[in-house]
Amino acid sequence: MPPPSSEGTSVADVVELTKALIAAESVTPARGPVFDVLEAALRPLGFDVDRFVCGEAPDGPVENLIAVRGSGGRHLAFAGHVDVVPAGDGWTAGPFSGEERAGLIYGRGAVDMKGAVAAFVAACAQVPVDAGTLSLLITGDEEGPAVFGTRAIIDRMAERGLAPDLCLVGEPTSTGRLGDMIKIGRRGSVNIWIDVNGRQGHVAYPHLADNPVPRLVRALAEIDALILDEGTEWFQSSNLEATDLSVGNLATNVIPGRASARLSIRFNDLHRGEALVERIRAIVERHTPDAHVVGKVSGEAFLTPPGTFSTLIADAIREHTGLTPELSTTGGTSDARFLSRLCPTVEFGLLNATMHKLDEAVAVEDLRSLQAIYATLIRRALG
Amino acid sequence: MPPPSSEGTSVADVVELTKALIAAESVTPARGPVFDVLEAALRPLGFDVDRFVCGEAPDGPVENLIAVRGSGGRHLAFAGHVDVVPAGDGWTAGPFSGEERAGLIYGRGAVDMKGAVAAFVAACAQVPVDAGTLSLLITGDEEGPAVFGTRAIIDRMAERGLAPDLCLVGEPTSTGRLGDMIKIGRRGSVNIWIDVNGRQGHVAYPHLADNPVPRLVRALAEIDALILDEGTEWFQSSNLEATDLSVGNLATNVIPGRASARLSIRFNDLHRGEALVERIRAIVERHTPDAHVVGKVSGEAFLTPPGTFSTLIADAIREHTGLTPELSTTGGTSDARFLSRLCPTVEFGLLNATMHKLDEAVAVEDLRSLQAIYATLIRRALG
Ligand SMILES: [Zn+2]
Ligand SMILES: [Zn+2]
Repeated sequence: MPPPSSEGTSVADVVELTKALIAAESVTPARGPVFDVLEAALRPLGFDVDRFVCGEAPDGPVENLIAVRGSGGRHLAFAGHVDVVPAGDGWTAGPFSGEERAGLIYGRGAVDMKGAVAAFVAACAQVPVDAGTLSLLITGDEEGPAVFGTRAIIDRMAERGLAPDLCLVGEPTSTGRLGDMIKIGRRGSVNIWIDVNGRQGHVAYPHLADNPVPRLVRALAEIDALILDEGTEWFQSSNLEATDLSVGNLATNVIPGRASARLSIRFNDLHRGEALVERIRAIVERHTPDAHVVGKVSGEAFLTPPGTFSTLIADAIREHTGLTPELSTTGGTSDARFLSRLCPTVEFGLLNATMHKLDEAVAVEDLRSLQAIYATLIRRALG
Repeated sequence: MPPPSSEGTSVADVVELTKALIAAESVTPARGPVFDVLEAALRPLGFDVDRFVCGEAPDGPVENLIAVRGSGGRHLAFAGHVDVVPAGDGWTAGPFSGEERAGLIYGRGAVDMKGAVAAFVAACAQVPVDAGTLSLLITGDEEGPAVFGTRAIIDRMAERGLAPDLCLVGEPTSTGRLGDMIKIGRRGSVNIWIDVNGRQGHVAYPHLADNPVPRLVRALAEIDALILDEGTEWFQSSNLEATDLSVGNLATNVIPGRASARLSIRFNDLHRGEALVERIRAIVERHTPDAHVVGKVSGEAFLTPPGTFSTLIADAIREHTGLTPELSTTGGTSDARFLSRLCPTVEFGLLNATMHKLDEAVAVEDLRSLQAIYATLIRRALG
């Protein structure tokens, strides 16, 4: 039997819980109150709640939560976050007010993704405790460096022997109407910094100087002409962008001694981040052997090929909305890149139109629909 | 008959005049006292002195001086400047003290080029007034923007009907020993600014953005491969340097909306500055039609082909020093670029080793040698 909630009150209504989560201000990294609200909602539903804090400055400390109900049968995990990006100025409602107006609930995190967390919790209340194993994997650091967030949760799950069969990530994947898109994969992301050194001098005496700019430019021209791939059945083609150039020489008559560039590559599952860094390094070093090339992989690409799990989600969406979701791999990275190593992982959540923007808001109707879809999904995933 | 000096004292000794000119602090643009010193030296020698102020902020006002002696026969002009670059900190002698120590006179302008002005004035005193026409064309703005300097002098000479047959520029052309090098030409100089616009966006959605960096890089790669020429009999090859690159995008996940570069070209007399700007513009616009390309020509190339005048100078140098000067066209630009449009123009002056540096200094011995060379040169040029 689960212990009673430490807060004494249960919040299993999706609208009330969404408002309560929004009101618990939790700009990334989140700790404390927002997890208190979530724990208070989960305990009355029979969840065992494990909260733990990881890491130190500058990327920590971070609070995470693993809630588990049941122990036998199939195991469906729901992954998400309760931290939010900063509110910014200019809202028409208080960004942490949870104000409801004309069928919309306003607040930072409304769609990304406190509303989806609330919908999943409320959906759990509709499912019998003995239906199978359910878990919530909730981090307080998805919007920040994410060093001590979902990765720490995965480590702790391994220690505890928790191995879900399927993982649903509640990020806002819908674009125009709730249920029009789910994500079955994400491209990977790597940033690469290129520094080329030369010897500074006066333009009238070029033989005494060594201009690094032409070598950098030749390398970049070759890099720009690269075709990484033509895309795959499920992914668009990988894409490379030169995002910065810098010399910082104000004097018109001075040959600079240093030139640098920065690249960003979004790549599909034909590539690995480190291999791309090596490929760029090889091109750069062919033009300028002493260049300094540093890569930082933010995430590898992942794909959960269309199959049982995505069909199950698509069916639940169709039954409640009449829409057939597009199976997409577009957009930025998400924590699904970590979870997909454990089991088939698909993302499905609210509309992303207002995420990270002023007046982020979720429709009450969407919250109730999402709860219904999640409830159907839970029953079938466990059954 | 010239009026007597307004200062009442005549200074025709090269060492005393050099010290007096250094002591009249004249960081560019120069006005007033340094011209008073020069005028006081010239009037007793029979020169008619015309001082005039030109221009307004930011490139003016600038004081200039035209001194003329005689009216018939051949006309030799000596061109130079009495403004100096700022002294900077760290001198072992006061930069405007004119202190003499171990045979050297220290001070800003000692070699560039108050010493040469003094040597020419002192040389004039050795030549009979009726030998021919001598003029000094002295600006107070050679080291600054030079908009209202030598160009204004040339305009005023045209108004007054003054047309020299030969022009000697007293810039410090000697490198290791006085007389080892004279300049018979100078390369031209042009700076070019290239701005390429695109549309900013997120690296995950490149189809919504338009990255200007690849277009700029492709244009620069083609520009870098240009061979402007192979040099001429008297000039080294023209040289192009990319002196700056700038995007200024700090966000690793943002495709920038603007990229820019700056070029500097030093070109020989096979080219004209504006034609080079047009050539660069054509290349850039082939890669990115809406680019913004702006050129600023600091000076066109000029050449006074070796002949009577350079031979006359070389002979005078050889007689007094035993050296045969190299006829060079290297280095930066000088006001000779303007004067060479009037008549054959050659530059010869003191050692340039300390110019624009801390502890700029001239050897007393060099001052006396330069005076002797200039005196021989004047006699033969007029004779
Ligand atoms: Zn999110
Ligand atoms: Zn000078």
